[in-house]
Amino acid sequence: MKILVVGANGTLGSAVRHELAAHHEVISAGRSNGDVTVDITSADSIRAMYQKIGKVDAVICAAGDAYFGPLLELTPENNEIAVQSKLKGQVNLVLLGLEHVNDRGSFTLTTGIIMDDPIIGGASSAMAGGAVRAFVQAAAIELPRGIRINNVSPNVLEESMDSYGPFFPGFVPVPAAKAAKAYRKSVEGAQTGQTYTVY
Amino acid sequence: MKILVVGANGTLGSAVRHELAAHHEVISAGRSNGDVTVDITSADSIRAMYQKIGKVDAVICAAGDAYFGPLLELTPENNEIAVQSKLKGQVNLVLLGLEHVNDRGSFTLTTGIIMDDPIIGGASSAMAGGAVRAFVQAAAIELPRGIRINNVSPNVLEESMDSYGPFFPGFVPVPAAKAAKAYRKSVEGAQTGQTYTVY
Ligand SMILES: NC(=O)c1ccc[n+]([C@@H]2O[C@H](COP(=O)([O-])OP(=O)(O)OC[C@H]3O[C@@H](n4cnc5c(N)ncnc54)[C@H](OP(=O)(O)O)[C@@H]3O)[C@@H](O)[C@H]2O)c1
Ligand SMILES: NC(=O)c1ccc[n+]([C@@H]2O[C@H](COP(=O)([O-])OP(=O)(O)OC[C@H]3O[C@@H](n4cnc5c(N)ncnc54)[C@H](OP(=O)(O)O)[C@@H]3O)[C@@H](O)[C@H]2O)c1
Repeated sequence: MKILVVGANGTLGSAVRHELAAHHEVISAGRSNGDVTVDITSADSIRAMYQKIGKVDAVICAAGDAYFGPLLELTPENNEIAVQSKLKGQVNLVLLGLEHVNDRGSFTLTTGIIMDDPIIGGASSAMAGGAVRAFVQAAAIELPRGIRINNVSPNVLEESMDSYGPFFPGFVPVPAAKAAKAYRKSVEGAQTGQTYTVY
Repeated sequence: MKILVVGANGTLGSAVRHELAAHHEVISAGRSNGDVTVDITSADSIRAMYQKIGKVDAVICAAGDAYFGPLLELTPENNEIAVQSKLKGQVNLVLLGLEHVNDRGSFTLTTGIIMDDPIIGGASSAMAGGAVRAFVQAAAIELPRGIRINNVSPNVLEESMDSYGPFFPGFVPVPAAKAAKAYRKSVEGAQTGQTYTVY
């Protein structure tokens, strides 16, 4: 299959790319590098990326920013980072990508454990994750041409513990390579509307 | 208690207002009428409302628009209705209202059954509901001064079946008065971070 991975050079995206590369043709996308560049916070940039790459069998998004910080410092303005990136960025990859995905293709988006198991400082990211999960479940029943959609919700990754560890006390991190398996399940399997938790 | 009800003249909000009015002082708010007017899609309008009403013990939101229509007609542009209203409108009522809520006060937001049990045409509203549910659960662990936050997720209301009925085949509608009880539980009870489903 021809698979677009957005965020392919990130911590999670690199593992997803490696998991898929042996069996598929991977097109990597990122803000600053990759086979194609894209800024998912811009609908025009997403449109331009799809025009450039043509038809694909699967779209994976392993990108999505959010403000992390105390709830008392969360404002309408910094909450906008998650709204524009992790939330609308991912939803727009679906809405604008639909016509570029082949029959029986798939979308796989990324959420995260804090939408289920909240941490201090994570309300904005949790909000975006909850939005994406509910969107996935609802969109699944209407996608045409056998196209499927799922999301993967990883625990904090072992590879991110140096930077995120202090925010996840008592969480048992998972290797990015384990989370990557769930993306393969989503792409090569037949389920739709699912949240694959890798906790 | 002094309770602000945003959307107090709507189908759901009227029932909430009636449920609370016998025991509390209700301040009603709406876009076009009420004790105070507010447009929750505008952070400035929310700020102005809170300035006008002063301190309250509870804030309830029973307002929030979303585009309903086929997924294939959902665009980044019409998806914005839910993002601005049902999602950010409700979240901003919390972020901007925090300093106007008394110690041990509460916020109660509104989601809806389609975030759990999707219907055709409901992906955008489901997205907003999922966002609000996850935000509520995460914000609950950081709210100061004993302030609590919950959300109520009603089934389709009996009172709305004339207009929404065709979109909810096989759903068993609930009376708005039954959904309103969950808002009272949220306001007068002691739980936080909860989703009260009235299905
Ligand atoms: N790391 C974890 O422990 C963990 C756990 C659960 C969930 N997640 C979720 O997984 C996703 C990826 O996390 P990560 O830790 O792998 O992040 P990361 O290492 O920072 O990588 C993010 C990748 O996404 C790209 N990207 C960021 N913003 C973009 C935009 N606006 N448009 C296009 N590409 C963009 C980046 O490209 P550039 O480098 O070119 O900017 C980068 O390749 C996030 O949604 C995160 O919340 C992560
Ligand atoms: N009805 C149902 O079956 C049902 C079921 C589950 C969940 N819900 C949810 O419950 C909420 C209320 O639904 P409803 O059926 O009661 O709606 P409704 O009858 O249309 O009432 C909505 C109320 O909210 C106000 N409002 C709308 N947009 C606003 C804005 N931007 N700023 C301030 N106020 C605004 C309206 O004021 P004006 O009249 O002045 O514009 C009106 O009072 C929605 O989030 C809906 O998704 C409804």
